[in-house]
Amino acid sequence: MPRLRPAPAWSIETWLNTPEPLSLDSLRGRIILLGSFQMLCPGCVQAGLPQLARAAALFPADQVAVIGLHTVFEHHAAQGETALRAFIHEYRLRFPIGIDLPGKPLPQTMAAYDLQGTPSLILIDRQGLLRAKRFGHVEDLWLGAQIGALLTEVPPPLATKTTVCTPEGCTL
Amino acid sequence: MPRLRPAPAWSIETWLNTPEPLSLDSLRGRIILLGSFQMLCPGCVQAGLPQLARAAALFPADQVAVIGLHTVFEHHAAQGETALRAFIHEYRLRFPIGIDLPGKPLPQTMAAYDLQGTPSLILIDRQGLLRAKRFGHVEDLWLGAQIGALLTEVPPPLATKTTVCTPEGCTL
Amino acid sequence: MPRLRPAPAWSIETWLNTPEPLSLDSLRGRIILLGSFQMLCPGCVQAGLPQLARAAALFPADQVAVIGLHTVFEHHAAQGETALRAFIHEYRLRFPIGIDLPGKPLPQTMAAYDLQGTPSLILIDRQGLLRAKRFGHVEDLWLGAQIGALLTEVPPPLATKTTVCTPEGCTL
Amino acid sequence: MPRLRPAPAWSIETWLNTPEPLSLDSLRGRIILLGSFQMLCPGCVQAGLPQLARAAALFPADQVAVIGLHTVFEHHAAQGETALRAFIHEYRLRFPIGIDLPGKPLPQTMAAYDLQGTPSLILIDRQGLLRAKRFGHVEDLWLGAQIGALLTEVPPPLATKTTVCTPEGCTL
Repeated sequence: MPRLRPAPAWSIETWLNTPEPLSLDSLRGRIILLGSFQMLCPGCVQAGLPQLARAAALFPADQVAVIGLHTVFEHHAAQGETALRAFIHEYRLRFPIGIDLPGKPLPQTMAAYDLQGTPSLILIDRQGLLRAKRFGHVEDLWLGAQIGALLTEVPPPLATKTTVCTPEGCTL
Repeated sequence: MPRLRPAPAWSIETWLNTPEPLSLDSLRGRIILLGSFQMLCPGCVQAGLPQLARAAALFPADQVAVIGLHTVFEHHAAQGETALRAFIHEYRLRFPIGIDLPGKPLPQTMAAYDLQGTPSLILIDRQGLLRAKRFGHVEDLWLGAQIGALLTEVPPPLATKTTVCTPEGCTL
Repeated sequence: MPRLRPAPAWSIETWLNTPEPLSLDSLRGRIILLGSFQMLCPGCVQAGLPQLARAAALFPADQVAVIGLHTVFEHHAAQGETALRAFIHEYRLRFPIGIDLPGKPLPQTMAAYDLQGTPSLILIDRQGLLRAKRFGHVEDLWLGAQIGALLTEVPPPLATKTTVCTPEGCTL
Repeated sequence: MPRLRPAPAWSIETWLNTPEPLSLDSLRGRIILLGSFQMLCPGCVQAGLPQLARAAALFPADQVAVIGLHTVFEHHAAQGETALRAFIHEYRLRFPIGIDLPGKPLPQTMAAYDLQGTPSLILIDRQGLLRAKRFGHVEDLWLGAQIGALLTEVPPPLATKTTVCTPEGCTL
């Protein structure tokens, strides 16, 4: 088994669907399912985002944090914050979504995780270690098995229960 | 049977996927399947536009003209021409698409046809008469039956065979 | 256009979902959509039979008669009348279904229509002429267009309105 | 957490798709996904059996044993062994399938597990303990999470690696 490395920090321009910015530190103790997407990517609209929504509906938010990451690397003029807000409203996405900080040539979080394109999925364990990264369509059965395995791992002893944020607000 | 009325003229700001503007006159002699949509309308992306693409693939273009009508009545800043061009590129839409001329409160062609929302379908016969208008999801079987019936009608005697336009160009 | 030929007569062992046997003569004046299937054929279960059910739900029964034809040419022991009745019950099929009369090597109606396999679709016009025959999956748009065109044809002058039969009974 | 109880033994009339009978003992050390179905149950054909096939394709057979259980409690004459063999052939099912031993009023394994109907899913852990039982449709994400969690459990120390059987034969 390869040595696990900490998940790179996120560089987020704006957070949507959450009253407070999120970070690896603030989510420590929970499993993180991070879904990279672009609002005009057909595979994201048809497969990636519905899968994130299913995961957010199935797993308790204090155990698994489902988070979208808008990694725009093309059609920048068409996929800005205003457009994304309209998209989120129309598609009724409810989980927190961070807009990746622009960079050259790729947005910064996308570059830090060395993602190949959209949609991509990233799994981070309760200790903040990067556990899986997949580009393109992944089966629900496979994703469920990864999350189910991570859920059985004992949380790190120093983990403090942190806030769970939804569009309505945060709870301790 | 109610008396049929001529289809209202179109007010189009910009045509995409066609080297020449289209009009009811230039399409006279062909059946027109006009699909009203918005690029950020989930029902359009999931059902309406794929149905238009299936119709464009099935029926000969010199018999049935399949045309998209971008009727933006909300999220204007997110659904402008630049955004629409990116959307068309990513979703590989190949049939001609007209951007409805903005109006208050509704875009002008949308208002002229008294459409209730997106997606909507309009069928126009070979003589330019309005034959059907439907809001929301319609079954392929139903749509096929309407088109099949219109195809059996004798073209008007003065119909001159007109140009068929694709992104590659127009042919007589 | 090839000269049209009369649809071959049907050889039916048993009729289900109809209180009276059906025939080309008794259905004269209506368009007939005849769907050949086998209850253990996956393509029939997944595509062919749901399409017949959609057609039966959409088109008025006094205009379009949707009829199933059970053409068993393999797994005879598993697809007898008792098994078919259980299948029809579980899948809630409501349109009339005829069991094709066994023959060597193929059931007799299947042979008379020279069908290649299941599912197959046959369209017969108001005058009893064979108008289309297709093996395998056909698109709803295509099927709708065929039926829509046949519906515009003038019924033959001698056509007498015949009985419409459902599992509940027949009406004039 | 409720005390776990051993999975009841299976009472199987005939095994298909495996050269040797299977049992809880012979599968000890592997997770067992047991899917109860009837060949003429639409929910089984459309959802339950495809899900079993996806699980069999995804998880290594020496870690997760996917097994079908034909629990016929209605339409007995239509769902006998000959019919089931035809069904398995047509639907290309490849995982082992056991025919539940008939009983009054329910087949015996179905009764021993107190199943409510078909489709039903049962999960058994590496030690032979019953870990989950669900009637009706379950999401792939949920099923994956259950299996993923069971996979992280340490196998019992005395588990001996047993044979893996496919239609082609068994391997140590």
